[in-house]
Amino acid sequence: MIGIEDNEAPGKNRDRRQQVLDAAAKCFREEGFHGCSIARISKAAGMSPGHIYYHFANKEAIVEALVAQQENSLIELVNNIAASPADEQLVDTLTRHTAKMVEHHTAPDFVGLWLEMAAEAARNPSISRLIKLSNKTIDAKFDEQLIAKGKATSMEDLKRLSIGMEIITIIFNGLSVRAATQAKEDSVPKLLLTETINDIISHLFTRK
Amino acid sequence: MIGIEDNEAPGKNRDRRQQVLDAAAKCFREEGFHGCSIARISKAAGMSPGHIYYHFANKEAIVEALVAQQENSLIELVNNIAASPADEQLVDTLTRHTAKMVEHHTAPDFVGLWLEMAAEAARNPSISRLIKLSNKTIDAKFDEQLIAKGKATSMEDLKRLSIGMEIITIIFNGLSVRAATQAKEDSVPKLLLTETINDIISHLFTRK
Repeated sequence: MIGIEDNEAPGKNRDRRQQVLDAAAKCFREEGFHGCSIARISKAAGMSPGHIYYHFANKEAIVEALVAQQENSLIELVNNIAASPADEQLVDTLTRHTAKMVEHHTAPDFVGLWLEMAAEAARNPSISRLIKLSNKTIDAKFDEQLIAKGKATSMEDLKRLSIGMEIITIIFNGLSVRAATQAKEDSVPKLLLTETINDIISHLFTRK
Repeated sequence: MIGIEDNEAPGKNRDRRQQVLDAAAKCFREEGFHGCSIARISKAAGMSPGHIYYHFANKEAIVEALVAQQENSLIELVNNIAASPADEQLVDTLTRHTAKMVEHHTAPDFVGLWLEMAAEAARNPSISRLIKLSNKTIDAKFDEQLIAKGKATSMEDLKRLSIGMEIITIIFNGLSVRAATQAKEDSVPKLLLTETINDIISHLFTRK
């Protein structure tokens, strides 16, 4: 297998890798993990199994890369905190990004793949380990940023802010479940949802 | 098939029906919907396919009954509002039940089945329809109770309280996702989680 794409440019390699991930994500969404063999993914990606194995050691490695992509939205929020002006209040940094986070967590492609991953994590120890590790990394990065940006100056601060962040994460996760299980005509308009979430963020993150 | 259990007592019939539901729930949790045929469920339940068909017309009817059971926890919350003392504040009725709701939505059996259902709803129109209808019914019952108990005396009240209830529902759904995707040692202790959710409920439901 080695050498298949040795003569191709790195950019092309990255495209091919993404092509596999996109095909795998579509397959997982539509058929669930069990329904998607490497053979099936290679067919969907329009590539030979050899090409797939050039980029990924096995199905688990594909899942690992997808988990990393899925988590981007939360990593992004942490990065936004890192990049925020030094004098900006945490509550302002967070609320500035809520509308985008609501969009992201209710987008059908995200919802389909993420719920399949969560359901699979509930029964498959190796997927569970991957996702839990990814979440642990994000939690740690968030704490790191809170300290680096001087938002948390004591263990008590850190504990309080971490719980606030956990509630935000729970809400975004719950939004994805609701997007799949609530009729569109019954759902709260996104603008109102964003305002209400921001009201909760203000309540949780404003020092009393 | 008809007549198989004609000579059995109604209580026994109910037990058998529940036996099918329990076996199906276990199969769905462990293998996903796709992996569970009526043949497989009948084997897991220790009953003939004929017995299964005596109780349920098809796999969809089993799913429908499971959805009804899964939703019991939210129906229960609505019933608790219905049964609450006339002079009790809504916020007190709701917060009284948070600890139980947190337990329910993080219990592995619930989490495994509910996430599989939500993932399936994201790809399967007939499951999606069942779950959305069930959620619509609960939303309507909640509004009904708010009016009946005199908590909402205007459309504005009703709108405000409905959004509060939606946020609670989102949080409980998100808790189930977190239970499957966060390592136990990283998760916020349940007592602290309950207190924080109750703080949010107070914030959302106390008239300002």
